Amino acid sequence: MTSPSAKWEVRAELGVHYEIVESVDLLSVDNVALLGSVDRSDPSDTQLVLVDTTIDRLYGDRLRAYLEYHRVPYHLVSLPSAEEQKTIDLVLSVASAMNEAKAFRVRNPPIAIGGGVMLDIVGLAASLYRRGIPYIRVPTTLLGLVDVSVAAKTGVNFEGFRNRLGSYSPPLRTLIDRSFLATLPTRQLRNGMGEIFKMALIKDARLFGLLERYGAELIEGKFQDAAPPGGTAASGGPPLWTGANPADEVIGRAIQGMVEELQPNLWEKQLERSVDYGHSFSPLLEMRALPDLYHGEAVTLDCVFSAFLAAHRGLLRSDEVHRVVACARSLGLPVWHPLFCDADALGEALADTVRHRNGDQNLPVMAGIGSARFLNDVTPAELDAAAAAMAELAPVGAR
Amino acid sequence: MTSPSAKWEVRAELGVHYEIVESVDLLSVDNVALLGSVDRSDPSDTQLVLVDTTIDRLYGDRLRAYLEYHRVPYHLVSLPSAEEQKTIDLVLSVASAMNEAKAFRVRNPPIAIGGGVMLDIVGLAASLYRRGIPYIRVPTTLLGLVDVSVAAKTGVNFEGFRNRLGSYSPPLRTLIDRSFLATLPTRQLRNGMGEIFKMALIKDARLFGLLERYGAELIEGKFQDAAPPGGTAASGGPPLWTGANPADEVIGRAIQGMVEELQPNLWEKQLERSVDYGHSFSPLLEMRALPDLYHGEAVTLDCVFSAFLAAHRGLLRSDEVHRVVACARSLGLPVWHPLFCDADALGEALADTVRHRNGDQNLPVMAGIGSARFLNDVTPAELDAAAAAMAELAPVGAR
Ligand SMILES: NC(=O)c1ccc[n+]([C@@H]2O[C@H](COP(=O)([O-])OP(=O)(O)OC[C@H]3O[C@@H](n4cnc5c(N)ncnc54)[C@H](O)[C@@H]3O)[C@@H](O)[C@H]2O)c1
Ligand SMILES: NC(=O)c1ccc[n+]([C@@H]2O[C@H](COP(=O)([O-])OP(=O)(O)OC[C@H]3O[C@@H](n4cnc5c(N)ncnc54)[C@H](O)[C@@H]3O)[C@@H](O)[C@H]2O)c1
Ligand SMILES: [Zn+2]
Ligand SMILES: [Zn+2]
Repeated sequence: MTSPSAKWEVRAELGVHYEIVESVDLLSVDNVALLGSVDRSDPSDTQLVLVDTTIDRLYGDRLRAYLEYHRVPYHLVSLPSAEEQKTIDLVLSVASAMNEAKAFRVRNPPIAIGGGVMLDIVGLAASLYRRGIPYIRVPTTLLGLVDVSVAAKTGVNFEGFRNRLGSYSPPLRTLIDRSFLATLPTRQLRNGMGEIFKMALIKDARLFGLLERYGAELIEGKFQDAAPPGGTAASGGPPLWTGANPADEVIGRAIQGMVEELQPNLWEKQLERSVDYGHSFSPLLEMRALPDLYHGEAVTLDCVFSAFLAAHRGLLRSDEVHRVVACARSLGLPVWHPLFCDADALGEALADTVRHRNGDQNLPVMAGIGSARFLNDVTPAELDAAAAAMAELAPVGAR
Repeated sequence: MTSPSAKWEVRAELGVHYEIVESVDLLSVDNVALLGSVDRSDPSDTQLVLVDTTIDRLYGDRLRAYLEYHRVPYHLVSLPSAEEQKTIDLVLSVASAMNEAKAFRVRNPPIAIGGGVMLDIVGLAASLYRRGIPYIRVPTTLLGLVDVSVAAKTGVNFEGFRNRLGSYSPPLRTLIDRSFLATLPTRQLRNGMGEIFKMALIKDARLFGLLERYGAELIEGKFQDAAPPGGTAASGGPPLWTGANPADEVIGRAIQGMVEELQPNLWEKQLERSVDYGHSFSPLLEMRALPDLYHGEAVTLDCVFSAFLAAHRGLLRSDEVHRVVACARSLGLPVWHPLFCDADALGEALADTVRHRNGDQNLPVMAGIGSARFLNDVTPAELDAAAAAMAELAPVGAR
């Protein structure tokens, strides 16, 4: 300020690095992956572990036995986790637990184990606590394994808007263990399939083929079998999968797709994001439908609705639309919902998404199976037409 | 996950750039700096402006007139701002206002005008809203001008801990206008001097000289005079200042010092920070003393206390300690407080700071006037000795 209009500039670069590591049977006492992921240079530090109440009920004993076996002083906090409770209040409960455990700035990061709700809440708390401390994520749902696992995002719902408050703060490490899926209810497995389905539609035709052929069986076997019953036999011909087994290949391709899409655009400075497919109309409608629709179900509905939009533009053939609908159905996912036939609700949902995309629609739509394009000039009339097409899928009683 | 222990890595870099721009008399209708700082590419966008209640009372009419003159649709929200209310609740009020104003992802950023409390709250709300939207800061206190102006940090108090929740999220731009100081109460001007004093002690001997010579006069003239009364005359000899006038030089050097210290370490990955001087014991003690001590007063007490620590180590001569104490006194800042003579409280405060510095003391202390060193082995006995030295400064009645 030595001249009448002094000016200073600050420029800086933040480097971010995190990893997603598979480790089977994390809670077996001879698996050191869990504790090996945290800096326990002072063994007297209290290890904070946050789980959701279901995980506590199903795995709490094994988890405590694991920590005790390794003689780790711990503070285990179990929190409710339901989409309706994904609020800042739960974030503050986690921050309280961090105060109680006397969390450090860097070392001895808290470990979060649970579904996407729990991971989002702990992630946000860790990003706020002392303006950001590291944390470790262990997803226990299919949706958590294939989607939250890679994401840098955290968030809570606010005033009826999905994830309206949140941050970009990836965990230090995410540990992937599909053996947790053995206890996951079928509807939750289907829910996770919704995000895999989305990835297949806009990016990975081969993954779509795997879903068509093995999807239903994977759900039935809760992703536990090395090779699903009938994987080769039932459909005749040679197996489609090329990895160790279809469970690993499906999960692996979904994760790989996310890594490829996220890495160059981690902070979403670029607002044309193909992984936003299925996430244009759903955010508002999913909140309105709570507790009716799970996230992956709402995403699937948006995928199907958007497929109709694309077909209307000539970007998708009608046989392709049929395959999309048939695949969703084979996965036990919904392809119709009244809110997705309601032109007003769809218009409002899009308007909010447009503000989220800074004034542009940037609407990802399928351009054939396995690739995407962006639209910026979708009209209300087109929304009407797609809504009408979806209405045709209504179960007979609902028409 | 095609092999039994698959692994994915994500690496990314976030570039950050922001600026601090001086602009005198921001609210005069022909000054376009304020509105020129926001992307108003759609003139029908509602401009959100957040002020604290004092600013509303003192400047609300001019601000409204300014916005109306420029025909800007606005939503002006006035919020209480006191250290005791620097909580997540006020952050949520700001997020509500963002929802009401239908804030966009990037364009049309909210403008925050006020003291450090207001700027911290709006900054945190902006960093959480849609996982981060840009915002503009206009500091109106001296502390805001010289310290918050450069900082990337936001924060709120939580469970008795200062700034326990927050983020690193610099505004797009900070506008500096010292004409706001004309209405600032004297104690608040002194408070801001506390942070300038800190910067002088560990980094800028010349700034220290300016404070010794002109500090009291600058406070008296509320930083409004081009040259303070007696700036040249009273002290005889030629003026010390080399810039346009001492007010600009003092503010400018303080900002410059912050820019130099922050830029290479914006996210505080390096936990040896000389600008943490005055911020080692004060965070906890300031909270305990609320509403007794202002932030800059607590910082000054910590600076004086730490000067005694340094003297005990032979890093500061006794005449230098005397100059430090005399300068603080000349600025109307406290040099004694019972909590800073209480060995238990000091020990607790240091223990929490050590966790914040990840297990190390990393205690910045003066090594002569204008430079700093770090200590990592300060003992309870040394705290006692420094506390005893500070006790000597107690006013007669308090001994
Ligand atoms: N951060 C991100 O980028 C990101 C990405 C996708 C989704 N999400 C969020 O994730 C949330 C959805 O996650 P979700 O589908 O995992 O829901 P969820 O966390 O609500 O979990 C679903 C249910 O399954 C239970 N559960 C979890 N693991 C189990 C197991 N192994 N066995 C039995 N029950 C188990 C949970 O207790 C819960 O009741 C949404 O809030 C969404 O916004 C975040
Ligand atoms: N983000 C950062 O890096 C950073 C740096 C330093 C301090 N801070 C924070 O800043 C806060 C202290 O800020 P502060 O000292 O500005 O306190 P403050 O915001 O409480 O303001 C002090 C008082 O002055 C009033 N006021 C503001 N401008 C005025 C004006 N021009 N005329 C008359 N009255 C005016 C305010 O209404 C308030 O009552 C602390 O909470 C501290 O943690 C943050
Ligand atoms: Zn999703
Ligand atoms: Zn400070």
